[in-house]
Amino acid sequence: MSAADTRHASASAEAALMRLPVEERRGSNGWHADTHEDGLALEQPVALVYNGISHAVMMASPTDLEAFALGFSLTEGILHSADECYDLEVHEAPGGLAIHLTIASQRMAELKQRRRSLTGRTGCGLCGTEALEQAIRPIPAVTAPSLSDAAIQRALQELFAHQPLQAVTGASHGAAWCDLQGRVQWLCEDVGRHNALDKLVGTLARENAPLASGFVLVTSRASYEMVHKCASVGIGALVAVSAATSLAVEQAQTAGLFLAGFARPGRHLIYHRPATAAVAHG
Amino acid sequence: MSAADTRHASASAEAALMRLPVEERRGSNGWHADTHEDGLALEQPVALVYNGISHAVMMASPTDLEAFALGFSLTEGILHSADECYDLEVHEAPGGLAIHLTIASQRMAELKQRRRSLTGRTGCGLCGTEALEQAIRPIPAVTAPSLSDAAIQRALQELFAHQPLQAVTGASHGAAWCDLQGRVQWLCEDVGRHNALDKLVGTLARENAPLASGFVLVTSRASYEMVHKCASVGIGALVAVSAATSLAVEQAQTAGLFLAGFARPGRHLIYHRPATAAVAHG
Repeated sequence: MSAADTRHASASAEAALMRLPVEERRGSNGWHADTHEDGLALEQPVALVYNGISHAVMMASPTDLEAFALGFSLTEGILHSADECYDLEVHEAPGGLAIHLTIASQRMAELKQRRRSLTGRTGCGLCGTEALEQAIRPIPAVTAPSLSDAAIQRALQELFAHQPLQAVTGASHGAAWCDLQGRVQWLCEDVGRHNALDKLVGTLARENAPLASGFVLVTSRASYEMVHKCASVGIGALVAVSAATSLAVEQAQTAGLFLAGFARPGRHLIYHRPATAAVAHG
Repeated sequence: MSAADTRHASASAEAALMRLPVEERRGSNGWHADTHEDGLALEQPVALVYNGISHAVMMASPTDLEAFALGFSLTEGILHSADECYDLEVHEAPGGLAIHLTIASQRMAELKQRRRSLTGRTGCGLCGTEALEQAIRPIPAVTAPSLSDAAIQRALQELFAHQPLQAVTGASHGAAWCDLQGRVQWLCEDVGRHNALDKLVGTLARENAPLASGFVLVTSRASYEMVHKCASVGIGALVAVSAATSLAVEQAQTAGLFLAGFARPGRHLIYHRPATAAVAHG
């Protein structure tokens, strides 16, 4: 990021936190109390309203909300492409924020149809799914890029500098888009890890980012939802700072998605390396 | 825990993980690959079915499922007490596991009534909430115990030894019930932090634990949902290893719940100390 970008990121982070007095206790034999202000991650109800119909309420950090709404709509399959969203407005409402989207009538008809089997929230994405048969949704095949160890490690090194909200609050997740050299291009933060990824996906759609030549790095674990969200928009590689779950690996295998985790300095695990994604050097 | 309990916990952890081959990459200048088996946290769809009607599907670790179903039912307010659950059976089903609960007809009538404004999943609890007004549900007042710094620190020290699933997978959360001396009495693990707390609440209900004389310690952050779930069953104190969100603090203030976070060796933060909960020593 440039210096201007960094300033923007810090300003954005400031809007996503609240300063509250906390009592810090330190000690071993005796205890000392020190009351001071601390930056807490703001967590607000955010409603997604499609063509006037409220679809879901999620708890989220109140920043990058347009990207969030667009990304959520794409990863949940409500929209097939960003240009099916004709209008997007964020309104303050009693009790939280409401994002009003105007979407293509065909997509709205489909949304009404599947209302009972899909609801989203804190980016969870399975809410309202009434039956187990519907719980594991079809996952599209993706093309995984060849990703070098050096790129993963470089992205990891750059990560923290791009997380101003996490730096202050210690309570937010980040999702970053990195090029194949491991340079962080965009990073979104949120109290919810699914939301951070949705914000990133929305940003990538708006920027028309070349999804074939990069990968997503997340500060959290890689669970079913994280892999599914990536594959659903054509992202072929996901690297997580923490571990993957069994279902995340199964989904990566089905989709042909490159999945790595436990990314730490000098070490990472490859959970699934598709045949198309040879070991890259550089 | 006794040695027998520890053995039980390890057996339970084994049922919640899957061993898969992973490619470990290590290096700095050159990179070395080592393929070996790793323990991944199992993540499975689990359906909750009340009186024959499927209510929600959540992604969960497939252990302690009876406690999970009972705890979820209590923290979501579907049941008011454990004895309103007449029968509980776990069945293997295509695509996952189904937990069938037989509940009091009055509670079932209420559940049908609020189906549209409450759905649960990965313990998220807000799913399907259609409007912002409903997003922040009423939180009951609780009585916070007096909690000493030493008790918090002792519980923290004991925590890791009680997390066999986390020890193997690095991908699970734990929720522990601790007495006022900080001794861990019960601990439940799950890939989802809300689920781990629900499993603990279900365990406490079945064991008829004295909720007035203890506290919950969770390995995750303290968000809105975590505070709300505790207060909804009368738990008066929550300590989190990581940070609290703004809404968690607001909810703790409303409920009169003792809320601490960033619990690390020799240090923790008090986000809210109700007037009833004086600083305790010992």
